[in-house]
Amino acid sequence: MAPKFVSDRNLRFLLYEIFNVESLAQYSYYQEHSREIFDIVLDTAIKMGRELLLPCHAAMDKNPPTLADGRLSVNPVVRTFLTECGEGGWISAGASYEHDGQQMPAIMVSACQFVLSAANYSASVYPFLCSGAAHLILSFGSQELIERYVPPMFSGLWQGTMALTEPQAGSSLSDITTQAVPTNEGHYLLRGQKIFISAGDHDGADNIVHLMLARIKDAPPGVKGISLFVVPKRRIRDDGELEANDVHTVTTYHKLGYRGTPITQLSLGENADCRGYLVGEPHCGLKYMFQMMNEARISVGMGAAAIASAAYYASLKYAQERPQGRPISQKDPAAPPVPIITHADVKRMLLFQRAVVEGSLSLLLQCSLYQDLQKVTEGEEKERYSLLLDLLTPVAKTYPSEMGVLSVSQGLQCLGGYGYCDEFPLEQHYRDARIHPIHEGTTGIQGLDLLGRKLFTKNGKAANLYLQEVQSVILRAKAVPALQPYGKLLEEAVNELQAVTLHLAQYAMKGEYDLFLADSTLFLELFGIIAIAWQWLLKGIACQKALDGELTRIESLFYQGKLHTMRYFFHYELPKIYGLSRRLKEVDGLTAHMNPELFED
Amino acid sequence: MAPKFVSDRNLRFLLYEIFNVESLAQYSYYQEHSREIFDIVLDTAIKMGRELLLPCHAAMDKNPPTLADGRLSVNPVVRTFLTECGEGGWISAGASYEHDGQQMPAIMVSACQFVLSAANYSASVYPFLCSGAAHLILSFGSQELIERYVPPMFSGLWQGTMALTEPQAGSSLSDITTQAVPTNEGHYLLRGQKIFISAGDHDGADNIVHLMLARIKDAPPGVKGISLFVVPKRRIRDDGELEANDVHTVTTYHKLGYRGTPITQLSLGENADCRGYLVGEPHCGLKYMFQMMNEARISVGMGAAAIASAAYYASLKYAQERPQGRPISQKDPAAPPVPIITHADVKRMLLFQRAVVEGSLSLLLQCSLYQDLQKVTEGEEKERYSLLLDLLTPVAKTYPSEMGVLSVSQGLQCLGGYGYCDEFPLEQHYRDARIHPIHEGTTGIQGLDLLGRKLFTKNGKAANLYLQEVQSVILRAKAVPALQPYGKLLEEAVNELQAVTLHLAQYAMKGEYDLFLADSTLFLELFGIIAIAWQWLLKGIACQKALDGELTRIESLFYQGKLHTMRYFFHYELPKIYGLSRRLKEVDGLTAHMNPELFED
Repeated sequence: MAPKFVSDRNLRFLLYEIFNVESLAQYSYYQEHSREIFDIVLDTAIKMGRELLLPCHAAMDKNPPTLADGRLSVNPVVRTFLTECGEGGWISAGASYEHDGQQMPAIMVSACQFVLSAANYSASVYPFLCSGAAHLILSFGSQELIERYVPPMFSGLWQGTMALTEPQAGSSLSDITTQAVPTNEGHYLLRGQKIFISAGDHDGADNIVHLMLARIKDAPPGVKGISLFVVPKRRIRDDGELEANDVHTVTTYHKLGYRGTPITQLSLGENADCRGYLVGEPHCGLKYMFQMMNEARISVGMGAAAIASAAYYASLKYAQERPQGRPISQKDPAAPPVPIITHADVKRMLLFQRAVVEGSLSLLLQCSLYQDLQKVTEGEEKERYSLLLDLLTPVAKTYPSEMGVLSVSQGLQCLGGYGYCDEFPLEQHYRDARIHPIHEGTTGIQGLDLLGRKLFTKNGKAANLYLQEVQSVILRAKAVPALQPYGKLLEEAVNELQAVTLHLAQYAMKGEYDLFLADSTLFLELFGIIAIAWQWLLKGIACQKALDGELTRIESLFYQGKLHTMRYFFHYELPKIYGLSRRLKEVDGLTAHMNPELFED
Repeated sequence: MAPKFVSDRNLRFLLYEIFNVESLAQYSYYQEHSREIFDIVLDTAIKMGRELLLPCHAAMDKNPPTLADGRLSVNPVVRTFLTECGEGGWISAGASYEHDGQQMPAIMVSACQFVLSAANYSASVYPFLCSGAAHLILSFGSQELIERYVPPMFSGLWQGTMALTEPQAGSSLSDITTQAVPTNEGHYLLRGQKIFISAGDHDGADNIVHLMLARIKDAPPGVKGISLFVVPKRRIRDDGELEANDVHTVTTYHKLGYRGTPITQLSLGENADCRGYLVGEPHCGLKYMFQMMNEARISVGMGAAAIASAAYYASLKYAQERPQGRPISQKDPAAPPVPIITHADVKRMLLFQRAVVEGSLSLLLQCSLYQDLQKVTEGEEKERYSLLLDLLTPVAKTYPSEMGVLSVSQGLQCLGGYGYCDEFPLEQHYRDARIHPIHEGTTGIQGLDLLGRKLFTKNGKAANLYLQEVQSVILRAKAVPALQPYGKLLEEAVNELQAVTLHLAQYAMKGEYDLFLADSTLFLELFGIIAIAWQWLLKGIACQKALDGELTRIESLFYQGKLHTMRYFFHYELPKIYGLSRRLKEVDGLTAHMNPELFED
C-alpha cells in the first residue's frame, strides 16, 4: 500500500465543513460547480499523486536533472505528468470558459496542489508554473500573445516560467538590468542574464515560455522602469514552425533539495537575436508580475505545508509501529517495549507537526477562498476580500515555509537515527522543505511587505477587516462553553498584537522607518502564529458542533483529534507570541543602528 | 586565503580572559602547563584545521565512504590525520604522564576539538573516538587490556569506537540483546547486531577496537545486566599478529550529512568466533560507558557549535561582500546598492548565529573546566564540580545541537538562493548539523535526564550549586552600572526558572511522574537559554572591564562587538523563556494523557 501523504478526510473537512465550497455555486461564475464535481476533482488529484508522482519522489531526488550537450534532461515522468495535466484540464482549471478553462474555484485548485505537492513537490511545480504564466498572459497580454502562447501551455506541451532574478538583483528587483531594445518589427531584442529560474529549461516540454522582467532601453531607473515580456526558448515563425530564440541555458544549480526541478541560469541574446514580446504597457511589468508572484507565494506556502504533511504521516506511521522504551510508570525492565507514540514527547512532536500542517493548510485555503470571493463580488465586498488576501499573502507564504522546516525536522527527529538516513523519506523532505523560506521572496522580504506595506494600506483598512474576521470567530467560540477559554486566549493574543502594532506605528509616524521595520520578521512571526490560532479556533467550533451530534466512533475520534490538536496549538504555540511581543515593544535600534564593524572577530 | 571557520581571538578571550586556564597550573597535576604551551597547542590545532582538514571538507561529503568486497574505504586524509594526531600526541593529550599522555586540561582539548570540528566535523570525529575509547579502557580495564589496546589507539593506528545501539534498542539501552558467553580461556564469545556505529569500520586504520555493551548469558534484565567489552575487529594472537575476529560490516548508512564518517551496522559472531574481553566487573557496563558517553555528549555539543561557527563565518563574509538593496531611508533607485550586512534583518540573523556559537562554546568550555577542577580537587569541592558537570551535560549537549541547527539555517538564509546551492558550504553545514540533536542521546532523552534525574540529584544539591554560580555572576553584573539591567533580566529569568521547577516538583512529589516529565524537552530548552544568558553575562563583565581601560581601536571593537552580542541575546533570545514557562506551568496532561488513537486521520 502506498504510504499516506495527505489526509483525504481532513481536506474534505476543510473544504466542505469549514469553507463551505459548495456555496460558491450561488455566484453565476461558479454556478456549474457542485460537491459532486469537487469530489471527483479531489479524488483524481489524490489518485494522480499516489500513482504517478509518489512513486518517483525519491528517484527524482537521487537522479537530478543533468545538462549535457545543450540538453537539460529531466525524469520522463515530467513529460507524462505535464501531458496528463494538460489533457485533464488541470493547467487551465482556473481559467474562464471563454479561455477554455473550467472556472474552477481557486480554493479547489489550491487543495489539489496541496495533494500533488505532498506526493512529490518537485514534480508538482511544473504544471503550476505553466498555469501561472498562462494566466499572466491572459490577464495582460494582447489577443495575439494569448492565441499563440496560452493553448500550448494549457495543454502541457510548453513549459511556462517566471524569470525575474538576476545575478546582481535577487531580493532587489528594482536593480534588474536585462535590456529590451525595441525594433520596427513589433518585438524587442533582449540581452541579459537570469538566474534561479525554476523549470527554466528541460526536455519534458517542447518549448519554454518565460514571463520575463526586463528594462526597455532608456527606461527610468528602479521599479518604474521594469516591463514584462514573453520570451520563448523557441519562437514561432510566421509559418508556424519553431526556431531557436537565442536563449541559452548556462547551468542548472546543484541544490540541497527540490532536486527534481531544474533551477537554471539563462543567458539571453548572446547573438543579439533574442526576441521578446511586450505584455501590456511598457514600465508596468512589476505590477503585472505581482499577480503571478502573489499566486506563487500562496503556492509556496502550499508546497511547504504539503511537504510537512508527507513528513508528518511518515513519522506518524513510524511512531505507531516502532517499539522502544516503556511508560514512565513501568519499572519492570522485562515488560515489553511500547510503540513510541505512547511517549509524551513523541506525541508532542506529532501534535506540533499536525498543528503546523493542518493550520497552514487551513490558512492557505482561506486565502484562496478570498481570491474566489474577490473575483465574483463587487464594490465594497470585492475590496474587502482583495484587501484580506493581500494582507494575508505574506503570512500564508511565510508561516508554512518557516514552520514547515521545523515541522519536518521534528518528523525526522521522531525516527531518531533512521530519520537521518535515506532509507526513510524524512531526510529528503528535510532538504526539500528548506527552499520555501527563500524562493518567491525571502522571509525578511515578506516581513517588510506585511509591516511596511500591507498592514497600513488604506489607513489600516486591511488590518481592520482582518481583526473583524478574527473577532467574529472569537465571539462564536465564546458562545460555545467548551471553547470559551480558547476564545479568551485568542482575544488576549489579538490584544497583544494590537498593542505591539500601535507601539510600532509611533515610529512610522515619527518617520523613523528604520526602527519601525527593524524587527519586521519577528512581527510577521507573531502575526502568523495568531493567524493560525484563528484558523484552529474556526475549526474547533465546527468540531465541537459535530461532536454535539450523533457520530460513529471513527468520526468522533476524528473531531476529537482535531480539537486536541487545536488545544495543542493554543497551549504550546500561541504562548510564543509573548516572548516575541516583549522584544517587539523594545524598539531600541539594536540591529538597525548597529555598526557592522562590530562583527569583526 | 582559507576561509575563516573559527575566531582565534575569541578562543583566547574565553580561555584566558574568562576561564583563566593558566591558573590550572596551580594544581600539581597541571603544573607543567603554561600559557605558552596552550598557545602553541591552539596554534597547531588551527593550522591543522586550516591546512589539513578544511581543504577536504567538501570532498569527504561528495565522496562518502563506500563498502565493496568487504573493504570500507574512506578518504585517504583519514589515515593521514589519525597518524598526525597520534604522532602529535593529540589522541593521548588528556591522559596522565603515567599512560604516556600529556595531562592536558580538558578545556584545552575541548577548545582544540572545536577548532578541528569547525574545519571538518566528519574528519574530527575519528581521533576523538579513539581517545574516548582508550580512556574508557584506562579507567576500567585490566593492565593487560591497557597494554594491548591503548598504545595503538593513542598512536592513531587503531580506531576506537563506542558500540551501544542495536536494531531493537536505540534510546532504550536496557533492551540490548547482544550476548556474551563466557569461555574457559578468559574471553567471551559475542553474538549480536550493532547499528549506527560511528567509524565502526574503515581502511584509514589498521584495526578497529569496539567498546561494546553486551549482556553476559543469564544476566539480569534491564540496565543491571549490561557489561562492557573490548571487541576488536582483528584480535591479537599470542604471537602478536592480528587475525579476524568474526566482526562483519553489514552496511554503511547513506545519510543526510556527516558523510565523511562511515556509520556502520555490524554483525558479531556469525561463525561463533567473535571474542570479547570484559572491561571491569560484570554487569557494570552501562555505568562505565557513561564516562565515555558523558564526554561524548560534551563532544557532540562542541561539534554542533563548531559547525555553526563555520557556517556563521561563511555567512558573515557573504553579507559583508554581497551588495543588494538600499537603506530604508534611501528612496533614490539610482543610488548604489549596499552590502547586505547593513540591513537590520541581516544583522539580526548574524547576531543570532554569533550569540548561539559563542554562547554555546562558552558553556561547553565551562563544562570542560568543571571536568578539570573535579579531577584535581578533593572532598566537597570535588563533589561540587562533579555535580555541576553532571547537571550541565544534557544542557551543553542540547542547546548547541538544537540551536546549532537553527543557527546554520539562518546562515544559509543570509545567502538566499545561493545558500541552497552547493557552490557555498552552507547547505553542507545544514545537513551535517542535523545529526547532533540525534546522536549520543536525542534531545528528548536529554530532557528526561535533566529534569528526571540530574536536577533533583542529592535533594537538588546540583541545582543549588548551579544557582549559586549564576547568582554570583548576577551579583557581579549588578555592580557594573552598564550591566545592571542585564543582571536584573537574568535574575528575573532565574526566578522564573525556579517558579517553574517548584511547580513541576509538586507532581514528582505526588508521584505523578508522567505529568512531571511530560514537557521535559521544553524545560530543557528553557534551562538552556538561561544557561547561555549566564555565560553571556559572564563575558559581558569581562568586556566591560576591558573597555574601561586603554584599548586599540581593533580591541575596542572586539569587546564592543561581544557586548553587543550579549545585548542581542538578552533582548531577543532570553524573552523566549516566558512563552516556555507559560506552557510549563500548565501541566494538563495534554500529551501525557492523550489517547494515541486521536492521531487517526
